[in-house]
Amino acid sequence: MAGNTFGTLFKLTTFGESHGPAIGGIIDGCPAGLKIDADIILHDLSRRRPGQSMITTQRNEPDDFEILSGIYQGVTTGSPIAFTIQNKDQRPDDYAAMKTAYRPSHADFTYDQKYGHRDHRGSGRASARETAARVFGGAIARQLLSNSGIKIDAYVSAVGPFKMGDNYELVDFSKIESNIVRCPDAELANKMINYLEELKKKGDTTGGVITCVIKDVPAGLGEPVFDKLHADLGKAILSINAVHGFEYGSGFAGAAMTGSEHNDLFKKQGSKIVTSSNNSGGIQGGISNGMDIFFRVAFKPVSTLMMEQKTVNKEGQNIELKAEGRHDPCVVPRAVPIVEAMSALTLADHLLRNRNSKLV
Amino acid sequence: MAGNTFGTLFKLTTFGESHGPAIGGIIDGCPAGLKIDADIILHDLSRRRPGQSMITTQRNEPDDFEILSGIYQGVTTGSPIAFTIQNKDQRPDDYAAMKTAYRPSHADFTYDQKYGHRDHRGSGRASARETAARVFGGAIARQLLSNSGIKIDAYVSAVGPFKMGDNYELVDFSKIESNIVRCPDAELANKMINYLEELKKKGDTTGGVITCVIKDVPAGLGEPVFDKLHADLGKAILSINAVHGFEYGSGFAGAAMTGSEHNDLFKKQGSKIVTSSNNSGGIQGGISNGMDIFFRVAFKPVSTLMMEQKTVNKEGQNIELKAEGRHDPCVVPRAVPIVEAMSALTLADHLLRNRNSKLV
Amino acid sequence: MAGNTFGTLFKLTTFGESHGPAIGGIIDGCPAGLKIDADIILHDLSRRRPGQSMITTQRNEPDDFEILSGIYQGVTTGSPIAFTIQNKDQRPDDYAAMKTAYRPSHADFTYDQKYGHRDHRGSGRASARETAARVFGGAIARQLLSNSGIKIDAYVSAVGPFKMGDNYELVDFSKIESNIVRCPDAELANKMINYLEELKKKGDTTGGVITCVIKDVPAGLGEPVFDKLHADLGKAILSINAVHGFEYGSGFAGAAMTGSEHNDLFKKQGSKIVTSSNNSGGIQGGISNGMDIFFRVAFKPVSTLMMEQKTVNKEGQNIELKAEGRHDPCVVPRAVPIVEAMSALTLADHLLRNRNSKLV
Amino acid sequence: MAGNTFGTLFKLTTFGESHGPAIGGIIDGCPAGLKIDADIILHDLSRRRPGQSMITTQRNEPDDFEILSGIYQGVTTGSPIAFTIQNKDQRPDDYAAMKTAYRPSHADFTYDQKYGHRDHRGSGRASARETAARVFGGAIARQLLSNSGIKIDAYVSAVGPFKMGDNYELVDFSKIESNIVRCPDAELANKMINYLEELKKKGDTTGGVITCVIKDVPAGLGEPVFDKLHADLGKAILSINAVHGFEYGSGFAGAAMTGSEHNDLFKKQGSKIVTSSNNSGGIQGGISNGMDIFFRVAFKPVSTLMMEQKTVNKEGQNIELKAEGRHDPCVVPRAVPIVEAMSALTLADHLLRNRNSKLV
Repeated sequence: MAGNTFGTLFKLTTFGESHGPAIGGIIDGCPAGLKIDADIILHDLSRRRPGQSMITTQRNEPDDFEILSGIYQGVTTGSPIAFTIQNKDQRPDDYAAMKTAYRPSHADFTYDQKYGHRDHRGSGRASARETAARVFGGAIARQLLSNSGIKIDAYVSAVGPFKMGDNYELVDFSKIESNIVRCPDAELANKMINYLEELKKKGDTTGGVITCVIKDVPAGLGEPVFDKLHADLGKAILSINAVHGFEYGSGFAGAAMTGSEHNDLFKKQGSKIVTSSNNSGGIQGGISNGMDIFFRVAFKPVSTLMMEQKTVNKEGQNIELKAEGRHDPCVVPRAVPIVEAMSALTLADHLLRNRNSKLV
Repeated sequence: MAGNTFGTLFKLTTFGESHGPAIGGIIDGCPAGLKIDADIILHDLSRRRPGQSMITTQRNEPDDFEILSGIYQGVTTGSPIAFTIQNKDQRPDDYAAMKTAYRPSHADFTYDQKYGHRDHRGSGRASARETAARVFGGAIARQLLSNSGIKIDAYVSAVGPFKMGDNYELVDFSKIESNIVRCPDAELANKMINYLEELKKKGDTTGGVITCVIKDVPAGLGEPVFDKLHADLGKAILSINAVHGFEYGSGFAGAAMTGSEHNDLFKKQGSKIVTSSNNSGGIQGGISNGMDIFFRVAFKPVSTLMMEQKTVNKEGQNIELKAEGRHDPCVVPRAVPIVEAMSALTLADHLLRNRNSKLV
Repeated sequence: MAGNTFGTLFKLTTFGESHGPAIGGIIDGCPAGLKIDADIILHDLSRRRPGQSMITTQRNEPDDFEILSGIYQGVTTGSPIAFTIQNKDQRPDDYAAMKTAYRPSHADFTYDQKYGHRDHRGSGRASARETAARVFGGAIARQLLSNSGIKIDAYVSAVGPFKMGDNYELVDFSKIESNIVRCPDAELANKMINYLEELKKKGDTTGGVITCVIKDVPAGLGEPVFDKLHADLGKAILSINAVHGFEYGSGFAGAAMTGSEHNDLFKKQGSKIVTSSNNSGGIQGGISNGMDIFFRVAFKPVSTLMMEQKTVNKEGQNIELKAEGRHDPCVVPRAVPIVEAMSALTLADHLLRNRNSKLV
Repeated sequence: MAGNTFGTLFKLTTFGESHGPAIGGIIDGCPAGLKIDADIILHDLSRRRPGQSMITTQRNEPDDFEILSGIYQGVTTGSPIAFTIQNKDQRPDDYAAMKTAYRPSHADFTYDQKYGHRDHRGSGRASARETAARVFGGAIARQLLSNSGIKIDAYVSAVGPFKMGDNYELVDFSKIESNIVRCPDAELANKMINYLEELKKKGDTTGGVITCVIKDVPAGLGEPVFDKLHADLGKAILSINAVHGFEYGSGFAGAAMTGSEHNDLFKKQGSKIVTSSNNSGGIQGGISNGMDIFFRVAFKPVSTLMMEQKTVNKEGQNIELKAEGRHDPCVVPRAVPIVEAMSALTLADHLLRNRNSKLV
């Protein structure tokens, strides 16, 4: 079974290679009657878009999309929503040298091993360009969630060695989009940007961390025992290119705590039952408890370096390779809307799944 | 869609509450012709089993299983393999007090929110007892993998503040089962055991970390773009009770590195193409590359404390609660075979999925 | 992907061979809060049960079932419902001769071709005994449907050459259980019974037709374009052992009509929109329209004959074979509850699926 | 769960309304390395295409398709194959009158009941235009099957009261495309054509029957107990617009036979085990046995009549309606490639599924 579909009831199937005519996808399972605002889609795509700032790749694609079905008079009909995003600024010649070369820490070698026949241009299907289709899908999911009051915000909390503190409650979310690195701490953001410019000059790259917070999720989402809400969120996030780690709530740090420190005590707040602390990250037993859901995501450094690297080609011969495409020194600033999109797709799916948990 | 099935081609569906007559499951999709060794199943179940040592719960269940179908004359027939594990040492009275109480950081509240009607005895479906069915399923998957030469080993690398180094290549796997905490560093293991005994006296608990290594995986397993091998591994592992984090390869530490440090350079080794380093954790572009796959798993502290805690009941009234069941001070020693089982189920599924990647 | 699960949201996975310790299954996705009446399950199982009359096989199994999970205090909890039905009256020795023989029109040859390794005793997984698990599952689904007012009734409308008229509206459903052949036309029932007794004496068998009527289905069930309600019903019914044909509404006869004869004109009836005729069989564009759903099912003659037949064995040698097990001369009287069960499972699945068709 | 995906391993997801910009789909799961001949796709689309003869609708669409991904240098890459077919000859104004009217035996009423919000233009998603995407998908599947030697041929065996005999072995398949009605019996074809022209003049329509034969299927395809090969074929075929019945092998006629007439005796033929007769239609126990698979499909009369019909509108008011779009007097001549396509998709899926039935 191939793996190009995400979700069970709110399903996104994507297609497209970096240098084919278009990428896109089909969303099947969006309920009828949802008003769609195209500006929300455009806004999310523009945040993911290459060429948006000097610290991102200069591939220049406005990401114009076309909706082919499933929306009539601005409202979903319950039929599948198909969309395409044209590939406009293709330069397949940039990749001629990579036809047989195995770029270090890229998917060239593994795609060859798995499929035998491979579209090498711009990494083909393994290109991060594929994530534009996720962002489109996420922008539809986000509007379904808005309808239930659910809000999702992600931001860059680390770039290379520069890290924010872990407490997201101290963060002013309105500052996220105020700088090109999408770190809400302005001072740290400057350091990150300087660091990235330095790396870019050297042809080197780095990794980073994104923190994501989901607010106003109703209690009850998540499907034990295998499709726990955080397990499906984890899969969604880990499926994004370059992600190497996922932790929610207390995460890895929680493993060193004692139970008496870690337990979140229940209390009554108005008519609601809430918890005094939130080491559970809003999820208990795999089901949302109504508190904020939050998690952190580790991205590895970008693999494409603008410097010579030793590697081998298809025939196993030693070669030296230097990239000539257009690439980011760090993926996290543009990955913020992708993390939000995958979160939105996961939550939308579980919102629909939960409609069947009880008889009425 | 409910969430009690794991996998797409090698599928495990589990059932059962902690204090019902039995737990168990059905494995559908195991190819015909696989010889099954019942001792391997028994061995894995006994490693997960409660009451195995002084640092585990004293609930005493030998975990005798019965296979009801799918295996004839010791060999799989291609039909579904159903199995049951009786619940023998039930003491539902231990849980009478918890009928309406919401235990801190437990699933009582969220199950009530989701389902309305709940079997409160021993946490019902949310009990870690459910994982015995996973271990059974994993023991079948492990035998399918053995047939392809794949080996899986997990061990405890941290308990509370006591941590091993991250390099699994320095670890002697033959030492894992030599102590009750399943940490292959004998000296550290002693410290962990002492710490757990202290906590137990206080009625407190802690968390820990498990490291898992999968060797001799053929290149080509994993299904981009959503069902990347590490994404499905992550989901499998995050679905285990109490897991709060998952990282593979360079993980969170990798996010602070530069690309030139992090990239794994390809080289020829005999007739094989290998990488000089393995920050990729054996997976590139979501597909196994033939190198070792390894990952680390964070478990939060056990929620059930043998001390008074403040909480509320179903009606939102303030109450004080002290557990009376039988519980572990730390879950990681018994979680080692569960991590292996979920890994085996994931790999077995992808082994079968990959049979269709190429025409022949 | 193996095929032992039916349904997408209301899912039944079955297991078990004819001569293993037990058959059974897991229902995953039944909403919490449904009151379960065990007598309804028993009643349906007893109608499918062998040995219930002189025209059925004498294998004598009371079909006692055990529910292992998912129901607490008589009410579903939302967790998977597992059940077993013991195999009590096993006589594997009856089948010794069939270890290598390929019985005509049986699944011996094809199972060998597909799986290589086969449990030959009593047809193993291919035995009609498997349908008891479907009847159990259907009895749960039926109770979910009752809760929405939906009723399902099937009856025998033909046995060999003896056929009722096609108009189900002339049928008195209260007469279905008044004779052992389950044909509501008493006179015709007698002819059928006589015919079956004659065939039995000769060691021969025959086929028949079952008609099924589903009343009070709300408009809106069915998921175009592939999972149309009648397409899923057709698959459900065709998956029953020995079924060779399925037609709904006007069926094959409708193919010879003109559009002006066949079209069902809409009209207002009270506050409801109904149709004057019902050639559509209650389904238009794959979605229920609120009228009665009805269909007819063709069963081939039972393959096991109590007379000598020429065939070959595994090695391709010519042999003569005479069955020694216990078998029915015609399957349709016992298949009535199976047709109802598969219909109930299909409708229950679509009832849940339809909960997500609209935004609210 | 919405229903726009067909198949489990070889999956086709379709989208598109009759009067939107395009229809199309994504095929996920086609193995890498398959050579694709675009002419085969064009040929199948042209056989389904409206306006191909005087007995089909005059909507004139050449069905030009564009492949957006998944095929590189004429060979599949293992990535999803996305395709679009533009909607060129749209005349939405033809449908203005139908905005609120419920056309008899159409899906207007049921779509309104299910989704609330509906694209009424040209039946929207319920239009037979949707089947072009199936034909595209089938043309890819057919090429995968060819690679294993499997051949599929369908033909018109009845139009209204004009019927061929049931024995497909007497049919010369090379004659199927020699007349516009796709009936290989030239004389009968003429009668059918005359009948259709007469009906067209009156503004009336009729139904018909298609027979389909699948040759050289290897033994072993089909997944008991629910996904039997004929059950999945039946669902595939019943999901085609206007299908009201499906029977395979002996079908409904077989229900009146005795077992001694009906059983297919095994015999050795060269090195192969075959059966002397083929009442089983090439499938035993839900698994192909290597003999020809054949089935018959009943299509109801086309619902759109060019004559006045009484019906109601959305508000339940009585109205009279006369169609103004462009429609066929009978759907079966153009449905021949659709039946083949759905058969090809089903067989391709089961070919891949069967790769995992045995260990090696």
